[in-house]
Amino acid sequence: MLTQDKQQRNWKPIIKQFEAVLGKNGVVQRREELITYECDGLTSYRQRPAVVVLPRTTEQVAQVVKICDRYSIPFIARGSGTGLSGGALPIEDCVLIVTSLMRQILSVDLENQRVVVQPGVINNWVTQTVCGAGFYYAPDPSSQIICSIGGNVAENSGGVHCLKYGVTTNHVLGLKIVTPDGSIVDIGGQIPEMPGYDLTGIFVGSEGTLGIATEITLRILKSAESICVLLADFTTVEAAAESVSDIISAGIIPGGMEMMDNISINAVEDVVATNCYPRDATAILLVEIDGLEVEVTANKQRVAEICLKNGARNITSASDLETRLKLWKGRKAAFAAAGNLSPDYYVQDGVIPRTQLPYVLQEIEALSQKFGYQIANVFHAGDGNLHPLILFDNSVEGALEKVEEVGGEILKLCVRVGGSISGEHGIGADKKCYMPDMFSEIDLETMQWVRQVFNPQGLANPGKIFPTPRTCGEAASASKQQFEGVERF
Amino acid sequence: MLTQDKQQRNWKPIIKQFEAVLGKNGVVQRREELITYECDGLTSYRQRPAVVVLPRTTEQVAQVVKICDRYSIPFIARGSGTGLSGGALPIEDCVLIVTSLMRQILSVDLENQRVVVQPGVINNWVTQTVCGAGFYYAPDPSSQIICSIGGNVAENSGGVHCLKYGVTTNHVLGLKIVTPDGSIVDIGGQIPEMPGYDLTGIFVGSEGTLGIATEITLRILKSAESICVLLADFTTVEAAAESVSDIISAGIIPGGMEMMDNISINAVEDVVATNCYPRDATAILLVEIDGLEVEVTANKQRVAEICLKNGARNITSASDLETRLKLWKGRKAAFAAAGNLSPDYYVQDGVIPRTQLPYVLQEIEALSQKFGYQIANVFHAGDGNLHPLILFDNSVEGALEKVEEVGGEILKLCVRVGGSISGEHGIGADKKCYMPDMFSEIDLETMQWVRQVFNPQGLANPGKIFPTPRTCGEAASASKQQFEGVERF
Repeated sequence: MLTQDKQQRNWKPIIKQFEAVLGKNGVVQRREELITYECDGLTSYRQRPAVVVLPRTTEQVAQVVKICDRYSIPFIARGSGTGLSGGALPIEDCVLIVTSLMRQILSVDLENQRVVVQPGVINNWVTQTVCGAGFYYAPDPSSQIICSIGGNVAENSGGVHCLKYGVTTNHVLGLKIVTPDGSIVDIGGQIPEMPGYDLTGIFVGSEGTLGIATEITLRILKSAESICVLLADFTTVEAAAESVSDIISAGIIPGGMEMMDNISINAVEDVVATNCYPRDATAILLVEIDGLEVEVTANKQRVAEICLKNGARNITSASDLETRLKLWKGRKAAFAAAGNLSPDYYVQDGVIPRTQLPYVLQEIEALSQKFGYQIANVFHAGDGNLHPLILFDNSVEGALEKVEEVGGEILKLCVRVGGSISGEHGIGADKKCYMPDMFSEIDLETMQWVRQVFNPQGLANPGKIFPTPRTCGEAASASKQQFEGVERF
Repeated sequence: MLTQDKQQRNWKPIIKQFEAVLGKNGVVQRREELITYECDGLTSYRQRPAVVVLPRTTEQVAQVVKICDRYSIPFIARGSGTGLSGGALPIEDCVLIVTSLMRQILSVDLENQRVVVQPGVINNWVTQTVCGAGFYYAPDPSSQIICSIGGNVAENSGGVHCLKYGVTTNHVLGLKIVTPDGSIVDIGGQIPEMPGYDLTGIFVGSEGTLGIATEITLRILKSAESICVLLADFTTVEAAAESVSDIISAGIIPGGMEMMDNISINAVEDVVATNCYPRDATAILLVEIDGLEVEVTANKQRVAEICLKNGARNITSASDLETRLKLWKGRKAAFAAAGNLSPDYYVQDGVIPRTQLPYVLQEIEALSQKFGYQIANVFHAGDGNLHPLILFDNSVEGALEKVEEVGGEILKLCVRVGGSISGEHGIGADKKCYMPDMFSEIDLETMQWVRQVFNPQGLANPGKIFPTPRTCGEAASASKQQFEGVERF
């Protein structure tokens, strides 16, 4: 019935209202122009939105959302569209609110180490803006030269440096948000800890289901005096994994600590030819150490000793910028290089306790054998955030479904050892069916209650995160029941 | 009408049910035994609960809460009762759920750096349990030898070391909670970042209004290799404040950075005679630096240079445990020592941006002059968390009201410069009337919505945090309105 309603929707007067708010240039409705917006980084799912709007201010976002609320039109916010879990995937007959014209850095306060940005600002711009004064913005997803801060907030994005410095939520002090009824609400503030409920914490990572952030106050950090990158190569995965555990156990927290397996090493050497990664290594570790010069020198020594004790064959290190970038180049190109190994690949994102690394890598190898797909492993080893790349050929009938099954098995494995079905890519449309593997019914119910508080009509990014969105009837009756006969003090 | 209902409540069958769950020893109802529970650390407010229950397990807490839910009895959780904002203050005719028999450390996993505890476990016990293996639990409120982890979670407690390591919320990985209807829900997990909404983040600091945490998974940290404490003394507050800013701007994050003014210095020297604090200093800074030996040595030098450049008269430092404890002794005794200066004192808790320190201290001095009360200043300077101690005599008619007015003026000053009405003591019963100074109506409304999701009957810790709790009628009608005519996808 709902579909019928939607098919009958008369968009003309609605688009007129959008144009009144945004001007004609702020509304995209031609079929060929809408193609760009059919999917985000999860390209296997596609759906054309009915209309795309391009607001420039908080007030415009609020007015657009009010129109959606009035006509009960589902709306979905989108930043740069680089997300890997389909968090910005349109649904049929929706409005896509794209923040790419909201690209102003609104204020920079170096003394108090904070920057206020609009959501369309590119992640890397924040660091570019403040690096001259010796500061940087820590969360650094692989897509940082193109992804937007708004998208990072929605997905609670991570990156190589999140081992030491934490993910996006640790760097967002406050938000101005437009709630799904079009109200403008300020949550959090300009200082790290605020009284009352931590609404900022619940909003970051909520994948657009609680509203749209239109101003974001970020914490910036002082750049380290000295940085050094070590590359250690190993003949067994266990030795590399043991080194990771030992480094952390020694109380060293590297800026980043990444592992790549033999398949990945050869893939990147084929493509970008760093000539630094030994092609016969079973695994390499890249360890970045930052801090005071004296501290970096001492920790470099300690990390090298730990790796050698665990059987590393060689250790190379670099402190100058050029060589450091060269050592990182292969890691940064790993996903792209995987595209050279097979026609398609499927990247998974799961988390495990660090101590389970050797066991989980064995099990992934067993899955690879069982299903007959090569799996390359590239991951944030320090925080146990795996990114197995399953290599396949999508032109083979049924291959995608089989690969998704392998991906699902890997996620269940992560949950079984006490980990998580997502480290930094979010749940989106892609992983919602795995939420019950991780959360009990009552846990999910509790999250749904929170969603309904902000988003009672269910218009903000429907069909994401939760496996079985309640129907509106259930929601309304559950709520009524909940508040029935209530006595308050 | 509600009061009349309560007076008519027949407690006998209810207490029988509590006794069936907890045994006779688990239920306290004799008037003289209830006196202990009349207040928490905010001793100026008192109210005797109807009955105190002492559960030992999650299941028992759930059963007690279910009984409360069935009879619509308000209940309040209490840990050690050291809170300073009246978060565990009983209301008339309530059940006080005291967690002091829930003192088991349920598991210790050193490899993955986490410990699971019951809520009654004392803060300091966590460190004691793991320090032999070289770990510690970072949040360290002044009351750490007596306050409970459950209370820390409720109030999102801070401490001296929170400048570098963050407050309680940064160290809680997951929680088992009993919701106000008696359901048992697991939120968060055993790894730092989990998909879905960050319910752990919203629960920590919710002051018992969303339910009761019965199992808490804490993150523990590796102890630093080396620690050094510097004491710098200054002839002006501005010079000390400038040094704080300069230290942070230099990219140094001390483990702790505390400031004390002349009144406080003399108060503690009178009482504990450290003989380290110069009585003629206008302000002293205590800076603790931790890390690798080489790093500490280098940063010690840099901190000293910064303080001297800003006009410090003398700098003393200590690396051995005994002298370090001696340097900290005065700071730790500061609140107690203030009790020696006047018959009573009122401790305020506010936060300001670091750069506003000199201005705010001048304004506090002006308030001191205007109202005629001495104000001692002891505070976490690094994160701008002020603790002005207003000295007064409660036996003077009307003095408490006047002092509360001064306290209120200080909070408004904090908000005016972009800060907060609470740094680490919570809002509780004490500060709820200042919430509208900090949050707009719609911000507070949004928090209330979240509260009602977890706590629809309003039975969990009523009368805390929010200035004007809605009546149940309003809540029910607002909720019905919200879900009316809802269409979901």
